[in-house]
Amino acid sequence: MKSARPYIQEHKDRFIEELVQLLKIPSISADSAYKEDVIKTASIIKSSLEKAGCDTVEICETPGYPIVFGEKKIDKSLPTVLVYGHYDVQPPDPVDLWDSPPFKPVIKKTKLHPEGAIFARGSCDDKGQMYMHVKALEYMTATNQLPCNVKFMIEGEEEVGSESLGWFVERNREKLANDVILISDTGMIANDIPSITTGLRGLSYVEVEVTGPNRDLHSGLYGGAVANPINILTKMIASLHDENNHITIPGFYDDVEELSTEERAKMAEAPFSKEAYCKALDIEDVYGEAGYTTNERNSIRPTLDVNGIWGGYIGEGAKTVIASKAFAKISMRLVPDQDWKKITDLFKAHFESIAPKGVTVKVNPHHGGQAYVTPIDSKGYKAAEKAYESTFGKTPIPQRSGGSIPIVSLFEKELQSKTILMGFGLDSDAIHSPNEHFGVWNYLKGIETIPQFYHYFTEMNT
Amino acid sequence: MKSARPYIQEHKDRFIEELVQLLKIPSISADSAYKEDVIKTASIIKSSLEKAGCDTVEICETPGYPIVFGEKKIDKSLPTVLVYGHYDVQPPDPVDLWDSPPFKPVIKKTKLHPEGAIFARGSCDDKGQMYMHVKALEYMTATNQLPCNVKFMIEGEEEVGSESLGWFVERNREKLANDVILISDTGMIANDIPSITTGLRGLSYVEVEVTGPNRDLHSGLYGGAVANPINILTKMIASLHDENNHITIPGFYDDVEELSTEERAKMAEAPFSKEAYCKALDIEDVYGEAGYTTNERNSIRPTLDVNGIWGGYIGEGAKTVIASKAFAKISMRLVPDQDWKKITDLFKAHFESIAPKGVTVKVNPHHGGQAYVTPIDSKGYKAAEKAYESTFGKTPIPQRSGGSIPIVSLFEKELQSKTILMGFGLDSDAIHSPNEHFGVWNYLKGIETIPQFYHYFTEMNT
Repeated sequence: MKSARPYIQEHKDRFIEELVQLLKIPSISADSAYKEDVIKTASIIKSSLEKAGCDTVEICETPGYPIVFGEKKIDKSLPTVLVYGHYDVQPPDPVDLWDSPPFKPVIKKTKLHPEGAIFARGSCDDKGQMYMHVKALEYMTATNQLPCNVKFMIEGEEEVGSESLGWFVERNREKLANDVILISDTGMIANDIPSITTGLRGLSYVEVEVTGPNRDLHSGLYGGAVANPINILTKMIASLHDENNHITIPGFYDDVEELSTEERAKMAEAPFSKEAYCKALDIEDVYGEAGYTTNERNSIRPTLDVNGIWGGYIGEGAKTVIASKAFAKISMRLVPDQDWKKITDLFKAHFESIAPKGVTVKVNPHHGGQAYVTPIDSKGYKAAEKAYESTFGKTPIPQRSGGSIPIVSLFEKELQSKTILMGFGLDSDAIHSPNEHFGVWNYLKGIETIPQFYHYFTEMNT
Repeated sequence: MKSARPYIQEHKDRFIEELVQLLKIPSISADSAYKEDVIKTASIIKSSLEKAGCDTVEICETPGYPIVFGEKKIDKSLPTVLVYGHYDVQPPDPVDLWDSPPFKPVIKKTKLHPEGAIFARGSCDDKGQMYMHVKALEYMTATNQLPCNVKFMIEGEEEVGSESLGWFVERNREKLANDVILISDTGMIANDIPSITTGLRGLSYVEVEVTGPNRDLHSGLYGGAVANPINILTKMIASLHDENNHITIPGFYDDVEELSTEERAKMAEAPFSKEAYCKALDIEDVYGEAGYTTNERNSIRPTLDVNGIWGGYIGEGAKTVIASKAFAKISMRLVPDQDWKKITDLFKAHFESIAPKGVTVKVNPHHGGQAYVTPIDSKGYKAAEKAYESTFGKTPIPQRSGGSIPIVSLFEKELQSKTILMGFGLDSDAIHSPNEHFGVWNYLKGIETIPQFYHYFTEMNT
């Protein structure tokens, strides 16, 4: 396949402008206030897929947000690539920490992105990376080089657990039949160190509620005499880690895949500077589970983090009150062989069991997903490797990511095909954070690399 | 002095209506958004004092909210009673737990208030109890029975630490000169068990801030590898109590007044039903410091309570984020001989010392005040005792309260006079909580009892 570079040069400004327009819509799936925006985004994806060359594109209704399904069939004797991505985004909170409004995209140069980066919620996760595939399809059809069949499945609930996607996949195995699933929703080590994500962590996300007295109380009249739900909640959460930062939930580690010394040695070869890492985050030191390196702590080890906590008076000034209730959102990142439903049950049983008399505890599971590891000897991986080599001039490093894409393991189970994670973002792109951005160079490099994957994958399968 | 009962019967409806009007104004001193309402309330207090019979009433400016000072001099050879109260109120949060809007007063019968109670923020704390004194003055002047001189000092910052009051008192010792200070800002055991508050706890109120990474992070990419400020905050707060619920801050108990076995035995005579206490709060059991009874835990023992906590994503749904910052508002109730400034310093030093590497901690002291104990053999106490006997037909029980009125010890220091705490509310009146209320019977009983205090106090001092 010819290099897409000339075509990209010619249409570069339009490619960027189309993405900027897409980023202006606050398609926040977690907050029902943005329902119309989420749905509007789906229809924009539909028309962009049609323009890019799909023969048919449908907006498939689900119990939740719709899934956009597009298809271009060339010849059923040829392999089929299924592209997955999502058009919903994380909430932008805390909005006041953004340097520019999250849904008013601006392009600014940064140290890591000298050619400029697009700052907006969703620019990297995942509108920008998903749209690379739409533009790659445009290139292949516009230049009559599409070497195989292609299907697109773009959902709107990835940031809230992809429940409707599971529902949809189970009901459309035929329609979704494919030879490989291609996803760009992860990152790479650096612009000059391409990498392919070979592992993802699973997730269990719960919300807990601690209730003490049936009403807020005066902390003078009752302080010291009744269980304060906030104090109790801090005690309960604190007890979930021991002094070595091991998680104390009984059975939590039972199924954890232990890597061999060789595997850990190989991991340790990936370039890492603790100084640079701490400097980038303005922290004095790293912190985590005893006996593991930073790269291991955020990839091959399970974790438990509080993502949000609230209770009592949080307004201006002082209020001497004992709150009736305290709340927290807690997520656990899981590793291969840990079952997220089992872990959720273990958490629930343990958390309820450690509640002292004087309070009642509710644990409400939000959502979750299984961890995933992909073999590096599959045709899909080899094709991706060659694609990167042809556009980066370097062999990509296989890398475990700490993040989760819950549906990847679902795809393997329901569609019996492997997923290849070709991510073009950087960890420093601040996804899920204020000032999320995506390098213009990375965006265009993705559009250039993806067609090469189609080429090599077809070659190996025919 | 004649019984005020006939006069109260005649003017009852107006007395209630005047209070209802006062309760309609959201004079929330903690929230600057209500500044105008707080100031408006001061001017209403001024005119009501003038109508009630004060010769002169001024609105005295301070660095914060104004203090209303009113005076009626009869004869300087006669004793002077200084009435203190406050016209500001606590924030009504959480508003959604109120059965009726906090600033739209309604009168409803309750089990403990068969003659009806006024439901509104400030009804008991302290607009209602403060206004009893205004109406008592009206009775005494209208019927030419005021037996001594009287001064009123009504402030607007009690709920946020009375800083301007300290400033004002230090500058107006002459103007405020008195023989006894009378305050109704506490409660009594029950409508058929009158009590006089002889002790108050001190207070130290701080706000803490834990900062980790310089931005919110994706909990997948960074989870397990960096200190999560919320997890750290829960660990730090949890560590402030040991397994016996003793506070672990070094030196915290050094100055705590230990009561004798006799004193504790006397305290234990006060009627208390753990079953009724738990039932009223819908809790399975009480909770607190080992080795002390419930009545001791909330009166003669110091405590540490989180009054508010927040951090990370607290909106609808899920967000997999590691917050950059986490916050908490923490208050400590102190007992006689603990100095609130020393305790605040001890807390700050300790809390900062237990922060692990990877986070930075800020402790911002809000405000505080000293604990107070009044002797039960003073003329003021004896006069109050007789006043209750004459209107309740029972001798009131001396009672230590767990609450704090930081300025009481300031009064003793600056004005060299004792404070008598004649409270007519009930602990169950939900002050500082949703659905705060004040019994109509209690309101009128206070107006009936206060003039008797003036009578007996004057009698004993001439």
